[in-house]
Amino acid sequence: MTDVRIDDLPVRDELRGKSPYGAPQLDVPVRLNTNENPYPLPEPLVERIAERVREAARGLNRYPDRDAVELRTKLAEYLTGTCGYEVGLANVWAANGSNEVIQQLLQTFGGPGRTAIGFEPSYSMHALIARGTGTGWISGPRNEDFTIDVPAAEKAVAEHRPDVVFITTPNNPTGNAVPPETVLALYEAAQAAKPSMVVVDEAYIEFSHGDSLLPLLEDRPNLVVSRTMSKAFGAAGLRLGYLAAHPAVVDAVQLVRLPYHLSAVTQATALAALEHTGTLLKYVEQLKAERDRLVAELRAAGYEVTESDANFVQFGRFEDSRAAWRKILDRGVLVRDNGVPGWLRVTAGTPEENDAFLDAVRELKKEQEQSG
Amino acid sequence: MTDVRIDDLPVRDELRGKSPYGAPQLDVPVRLNTNENPYPLPEPLVERIAERVREAARGLNRYPDRDAVELRTKLAEYLTGTCGYEVGLANVWAANGSNEVIQQLLQTFGGPGRTAIGFEPSYSMHALIARGTGTGWISGPRNEDFTIDVPAAEKAVAEHRPDVVFITTPNNPTGNAVPPETVLALYEAAQAAKPSMVVVDEAYIEFSHGDSLLPLLEDRPNLVVSRTMSKAFGAAGLRLGYLAAHPAVVDAVQLVRLPYHLSAVTQATALAALEHTGTLLKYVEQLKAERDRLVAELRAAGYEVTESDANFVQFGRFEDSRAAWRKILDRGVLVRDNGVPGWLRVTAGTPEENDAFLDAVRELKKEQEQSG
Repeated sequence: MTDVRIDDLPVRDELRGKSPYGAPQLDVPVRLNTNENPYPLPEPLVERIAERVREAARGLNRYPDRDAVELRTKLAEYLTGTCGYEVGLANVWAANGSNEVIQQLLQTFGGPGRTAIGFEPSYSMHALIARGTGTGWISGPRNEDFTIDVPAAEKAVAEHRPDVVFITTPNNPTGNAVPPETVLALYEAAQAAKPSMVVVDEAYIEFSHGDSLLPLLEDRPNLVVSRTMSKAFGAAGLRLGYLAAHPAVVDAVQLVRLPYHLSAVTQATALAALEHTGTLLKYVEQLKAERDRLVAELRAAGYEVTESDANFVQFGRFEDSRAAWRKILDRGVLVRDNGVPGWLRVTAGTPEENDAFLDAVRELKKEQEQSG
Repeated sequence: MTDVRIDDLPVRDELRGKSPYGAPQLDVPVRLNTNENPYPLPEPLVERIAERVREAARGLNRYPDRDAVELRTKLAEYLTGTCGYEVGLANVWAANGSNEVIQQLLQTFGGPGRTAIGFEPSYSMHALIARGTGTGWISGPRNEDFTIDVPAAEKAVAEHRPDVVFITTPNNPTGNAVPPETVLALYEAAQAAKPSMVVVDEAYIEFSHGDSLLPLLEDRPNLVVSRTMSKAFGAAGLRLGYLAAHPAVVDAVQLVRLPYHLSAVTQATALAALEHTGTLLKYVEQLKAERDRLVAELRAAGYEVTESDANFVQFGRFEDSRAAWRKILDRGVLVRDNGVPGWLRVTAGTPEENDAFLDAVRELKKEQEQSG
């Protein structure tokens, strides 16, 4: 075919010169770079998925339940059971990954002529999905220790009057949780400024020492809590994200959702996984213990570590984090360089994977001390 | 919770007062309203899906193949095998339904400050996804017989200089195919005006008397052909849409696609279905015969019928198509009122379903003649 490149096509100007988002997918013995759960689903759950998908496949010639009623009901039961705050079908919405949830929220409450703010470094997809939906992006401030600088954040909200405020807790890639007082302060600031929607991204909340902020939904119709089955449910391959909010928010995102966006096989698989919540949450406990061990051992080895409430740990500091990333990779361990100067991020893997990682970074430290 | 409605939330202005898209999901004996394939997947394919999904579920803790390489390769083989024009992995992109394909195309080539044109009545999601992506929408003209009025369409393209031109063939909801000369004329007009992308939506092409326009991709980097597994593959519940185009187009949509948008279970299920293409295309032949029978019997019964190359038929005319829709429903058959004044649309079902439909519309005709 003709020799044509992206920039020869009539693509939008802001896409010119850009590359697709995504971590390098390298073939390495120990992969601790994308915050995946290292534990495969238990075999009885695998069988149950096959069973439910077989059943769904028998009706695959028909469109799926457009409103995913059974799935949303079960997700609501899961939230109610684990957070002690009652939500129901009308409070819950689901989509293909929390990325699609966020995209739908930005199509509804952001978009052309509107803006969103996030406190960076944070989950970089917030800014990218803002770009993809034509929403202006404002990069809000953090303290040196990666906590949110509340007065500065309030000031930024008052000044820019964003339509959507993102708060990621536990934050990715730094790992630290955001206290409820901070979320409340920013919610108040956002309402005073505009009013605007506040999206609390709790993708990693099941790994936290603290509680979900779900109960803050009470009497706060402009608050949204987003979640995913990718991490705690060990189902990154499933692409199932969801949100909890006032029923009006659930109604509103349905104005922009693509009809029948959630396939019958996705719904069937997610429902099977939700039947095995108990088992899956036991793996979460193991991962929390491993995460705490990583924090302790990294500190013992002389690294700085950001407080972590997630299934990953941010560690440093490095004069050249890219070079450090490379040296760890040379030892067969893939971690993530999220572009936070001086810091890298490692996902809590199995005990064996974490041992391999710890060996690698201890060697690295020794090497640095010898050369330093 | 507080009594709050959509319009009390800070939603975008253009969403105020709108309702979600989607046909009424009514519990009726004969449902011929959403162009679904009436034949359930054959049992050996159901088993194969269960098998491939079981395998995928064992790795579900990991993110799926972000680039869906195996699936895109097999889709390319299917296109090459059925259209006699060779495409490969680099030419094919897949997403959750052709709706998501179209959304990605509009995010890449449309969006704020840009426009798209369609020749209406046509697939109404084109306009809705344009709205959802901030793309301005231009409604282009058709002739009285629902063919595209080429001189008027060329004039509209020259005048409005749209960034994206949609051509649906066979067209939905009217059923008629668009001749290749028309597509070529509009492609030339669109290039002269801007240049812009031309998206040929071939969701129903497998049911056509004529051929796919895939070979037109040769030397036309601004042309895209979009497809779906919902209809010919009898897999509406799977949500698998795809496109074929110049590799640069495939590269470009990756700038806006959500990372890992296509789940491991979706990829596994689609791959299983592609193994059974031969069997599924036999159902397509049956449906084409039934579609031709519907056209003949509707005409014999005194209805006007638009030429159909799809798995559905547009019939009329009715003074009040809403009332006619209701009367057919009262006889236990659900057809679609797409809002085309004077016309309704019926999907080709099983022979028994089509008989029930034909009985209903023959009765309706008799009733009209008696009252007329």
